[in-house]
Amino acid sequence: MSAKWSVKTQLPVHYTVFESFDLFNPENNALLFDGQNSSQKSLRRVVVVDDYVERLHGERIRQYFQYYEIEYRLISLSVSEDNKSMDTVFQVIEELNAFEVSRRSEPVIAIGGGVLMDIVGLAANLFRRGIPYIRVPTTLLGVVDAAIGAKTAVNFQGHKNRIGTFYPPLAAILDTTLLQTLSDRQISNGIAEILKIALVKDAELFELLENYGAAILSSKCQNPEAVPIIRRSVQGMLEDLESNLWEEKLERLVDYGHTFCPTLELKAVPKLLHGEAVAVDMAISVMLAYQRSLVTYQEVERIYNFMRSVRLPLLHPICTPELLYAALQSTTKHRNGLQRFPLTVGIGAAQFFHDITYEEIKTAVKAIAQLEPNAAMQTSL
Amino acid sequence: MSAKWSVKTQLPVHYTVFESFDLFNPENNALLFDGQNSSQKSLRRVVVVDDYVERLHGERIRQYFQYYEIEYRLISLSVSEDNKSMDTVFQVIEELNAFEVSRRSEPVIAIGGGVLMDIVGLAANLFRRGIPYIRVPTTLLGVVDAAIGAKTAVNFQGHKNRIGTFYPPLAAILDTTLLQTLSDRQISNGIAEILKIALVKDAELFELLENYGAAILSSKCQNPEAVPIIRRSVQGMLEDLESNLWEEKLERLVDYGHTFCPTLELKAVPKLLHGEAVAVDMAISVMLAYQRSLVTYQEVERIYNFMRSVRLPLLHPICTPELLYAALQSTTKHRNGLQRFPLTVGIGAAQFFHDITYEEIKTAVKAIAQLEPNAAMQTSL
Repeated sequence: MSAKWSVKTQLPVHYTVFESFDLFNPENNALLFDGQNSSQKSLRRVVVVDDYVERLHGERIRQYFQYYEIEYRLISLSVSEDNKSMDTVFQVIEELNAFEVSRRSEPVIAIGGGVLMDIVGLAANLFRRGIPYIRVPTTLLGVVDAAIGAKTAVNFQGHKNRIGTFYPPLAAILDTTLLQTLSDRQISNGIAEILKIALVKDAELFELLENYGAAILSSKCQNPEAVPIIRRSVQGMLEDLESNLWEEKLERLVDYGHTFCPTLELKAVPKLLHGEAVAVDMAISVMLAYQRSLVTYQEVERIYNFMRSVRLPLLHPICTPELLYAALQSTTKHRNGLQRFPLTVGIGAAQFFHDITYEEIKTAVKAIAQLEPNAAMQTSL
Repeated sequence: MSAKWSVKTQLPVHYTVFESFDLFNPENNALLFDGQNSSQKSLRRVVVVDDYVERLHGERIRQYFQYYEIEYRLISLSVSEDNKSMDTVFQVIEELNAFEVSRRSEPVIAIGGGVLMDIVGLAANLFRRGIPYIRVPTTLLGVVDAAIGAKTAVNFQGHKNRIGTFYPPLAAILDTTLLQTLSDRQISNGIAEILKIALVKDAELFELLENYGAAILSSKCQNPEAVPIIRRSVQGMLEDLESNLWEEKLERLVDYGHTFCPTLELKAVPKLLHGEAVAVDMAISVMLAYQRSLVTYQEVERIYNFMRSVRLPLLHPICTPELLYAALQSTTKHRNGLQRFPLTVGIGAAQFFHDITYEEIKTAVKAIAQLEPNAAMQTSL
């Protein structure tokens, strides 16, 4: 008789996502959040920012921690997709180690865009098998997407996010006042992920976007409708994450627009931002849905018109049917061998399909190319 | 009003630890375990072994997978504490990537000692944010400790296991027939971790060790009592792990003998094996317990006599009170600022203490040095 043990347990996860405005004002103590109720607060922090944050807010952040008499180390990293690598993760770990950050009570604070948060999250996961960290997004994409989930990642040998973990933060703190200095393109980039949530699960959010999307773009999220719209998008995203944080189910609504997108981000020259690649992916997906009679042509036009109004691309010259089909195959591998391709059914709902063909993709791209001749590949279509 | 979301969920974990003997015999299909009941088995596997396994079993492992007509890649790594690093993890990830291992249905099989399993576990965790893997330990220490828990780790800049994660395997498969080729020293090394379980929670296991420990050593775990003793140790270890797999409670019985040990392993020349460092740590801990009247001198003698009988060291010349106290401080940091020092209460129970002093350590080391003059630092004591 040989012995057998069945080890069954579960990791409880609890994290907080909250709005707080004017975060670097010393009157606001939200940045010192540590998840504890105890009065014995630790007065040590490592803060990691990207160079954009350093330039705009570095001085205020330093003053903030000095005001609270906190022993802190501010690390400023110049990050991009090109150095979103383990080497940059090691840089952060070296600093955590040198500062002798405690294992539980001194959360690392990451303030920056998605790349910075992905890097710091992975460093926090790997250092002593995991220390708490806080995400403070400074881009709209970060607010509605990267900051509020559990993913950490770096690129590896030309493969986007091939190395990473699921490691939820202690908290994500959302401050839309930080978004007012972003470029228009960065705002559009974030709107793409809000649109994604609207298309797959929230028809009313889509209407709000139609009505106020242009104002969000022109005011850089400072119009009165921005916060409620962002809130609704965050709510929709968190609902899906909460029930599937480790992606045990590979069919994820929030994967909408993320089928062709990794390849587009890697290959497009000049580079597409993540939200722009998602936008192109969604535009193709919408056309595929139309071809399968899942959406009407009126709905296609509403979606495309909205995308144009917030300056999101519908197509990119790199989008040959060959490249897109290869991208689908690569994503299928990541989805464990089934396409699990989400297509919208009307606006505000979606279903998964496993049988999208090369021909369908070719027809879809051709149709979009006729609408957007400037964005189409001239030779192949 | 600002919004706040509380994200609450849990990661269910279920893994299997099972005995199976003569694993590389094609009549035994245990190595093909994939946790699925489906008849559609994937016939692809990446197998990672250390060079010890390659030399002794490489040919049989290859024949095994050929017999089952499995598309496999066998990777042999020459691993040691010196290259237990992220570079070696990257080597494994490159192979996983090149083999295009699927995200869910093709568990990576790690066959080797603790170092190999720690490295492969981390690679499996990081690749695509986690793929399943199986641990097949080929050392006694691996069987009773490294293989059956959730820890992955590599060293970083001279710090032992400073980088790692908690990432439980799909299964750990325990085959004691693989242990018969080990050196005596490797067997003693594993017995140290069995002794640990006995001392902190299982008096009966300690008696079994007293009776059969020497036979386990001389027969290399092939005596009839070896499997029941190992089983009892695994059972004791899994009970503690199951309720605290992510070390949310920092007071862990299974941390007994692991207070001074990381420093001893790093600094001792010639090197101490992990179990040897644990043994020295336990011998000091036992003396500290005696000094606090938690164990009797008879119990101290029983424990020390047993350790001698299985050739485990009680002391090492590097053990100055200064070094040990610094080691305690370093471990205290890892335990979030409190010593949480486990000391045995009699044999088979333990308690945690937070106030062990330099003087106590000095007295303990002096006392052991008088018993073991050859192992003592001549100059300082």
